[in-house]
Amino acid sequence: MREHISGQYDAELSAVRSHVMEMGGVVEVLLKEAGEALLHFDAELAESAIARDHEVNQLEILIDDECNHIIARRQPTASDLRLIMSVVKTITDLERIGDEASRIAKMAMQLSGMERDRDPAPELRAMSSGVREMLRSALDAFARVDLRAAVDVIARDKEIDRHYDALIERLVPAMEERPDQIRPMLNLIWCGRSLERIGDHAKNVSEYVVYLGKGQDVRHQPLSRKREQAAD
Amino acid sequence: MREHISGQYDAELSAVRSHVMEMGGVVEVLLKEAGEALLHFDAELAESAIARDHEVNQLEILIDDECNHIIARRQPTASDLRLIMSVVKTITDLERIGDEASRIAKMAMQLSGMERDRDPAPELRAMSSGVREMLRSALDAFARVDLRAAVDVIARDKEIDRHYDALIERLVPAMEERPDQIRPMLNLIWCGRSLERIGDHAKNVSEYVVYLGKGQDVRHQPLSRKREQAAD
Repeated sequence: MREHISGQYDAELSAVRSHVMEMGGVVEVLLKEAGEALLHFDAELAESAIARDHEVNQLEILIDDECNHIIARRQPTASDLRLIMSVVKTITDLERIGDEASRIAKMAMQLSGMERDRDPAPELRAMSSGVREMLRSALDAFARVDLRAAVDVIARDKEIDRHYDALIERLVPAMEERPDQIRPMLNLIWCGRSLERIGDHAKNVSEYVVYLGKGQDVRHQPLSRKREQAAD
Repeated sequence: MREHISGQYDAELSAVRSHVMEMGGVVEVLLKEAGEALLHFDAELAESAIARDHEVNQLEILIDDECNHIIARRQPTASDLRLIMSVVKTITDLERIGDEASRIAKMAMQLSGMERDRDPAPELRAMSSGVREMLRSALDAFARVDLRAAVDVIARDKEIDRHYDALIERLVPAMEERPDQIRPMLNLIWCGRSLERIGDHAKNVSEYVVYLGKGQDVRHQPLSRKREQAAD
């Protein structure tokens, strides 16, 4: 009997883990589609991305439910509880990455009238691939509870911020020069802003990985301290 | 002995509640200072606001710890567990309101060179007072587990969005007309964006109140459905 229950419990925990990876996978596809829709002004891809956001939301609700169930019915050990609490926080950030990616897709639809061959902004291209790599690595780090990889993701967020600053520094003078292009350029800035936020969320997920592995809350600490925590 | 433990447990639960209200109170002050710093281009108030963000972060970590402790050591009943899980989510949104308000304060510092008597934008004034009321009401609804009040806060988010749209619709033509003023006007748009996000976070807090009271997850549902849930 005890073995039977513990088998069920293990199955529940592994269902939670795999649902998080599934949710992460859907968010990755959403983000890929939104990024490509933006870079190629492709309205069809944008629509496909937006439609996926519903799936992300449903997975968030499902996983939250599963976590509540486990806490209420089982008596999770300290380390299982860390997993559950990391999951509860991680899915909030994944859901918000989905939201931001949907915003980008909506902007891409507005921009879809523009010539397809024009690169909207090299900084957006760099940011889009950068945050996709961050998310990919954050999810991998989560799956393997790999603290060093998690801290590397945290460190990469600064690159995204630099591309964002470069985007603003290039587009503001461009707007001053071509006031008739302010609206589309503002749309590009919004996309940059959303990508920058996606970087923040991927960083948050990585911080939960450190908590999951070490039981240490490293949010709001300098990067050097996070590295020490991960290396200990 | 059992009574002693249950007394401690009650004390722990009420400490969590009161820390959430304390955190909410600090975020309210931060938001008030940031909003006034923006409306009066007041660098001193902006600095005071920014300094408060640290306190918000510390409270978030403390409350997360308390929640983990309760789940790990006590066996919370279903309704206590709903409280704990609502708290864990609420403090994430409160922390992010603190972040957005700090961003506004930083923008206010950049704008502090401007003439103090000029109203930067009537829409920002409306948004600033609107989101402060939303946050106030969301925290009240949380403290009293008042579902109707919570749904009213959710409904108010649309007002904030309307002011934000009006801000953009006024500032874009103004930028087209005065390209030399693009930078400061962009800063005002950033502030509008942050206020709009703060409205979203206050709405999230209110959705957790409905979950807390009803055990129903109303996120991602239309407003009419949320009203039904709250009224049942």
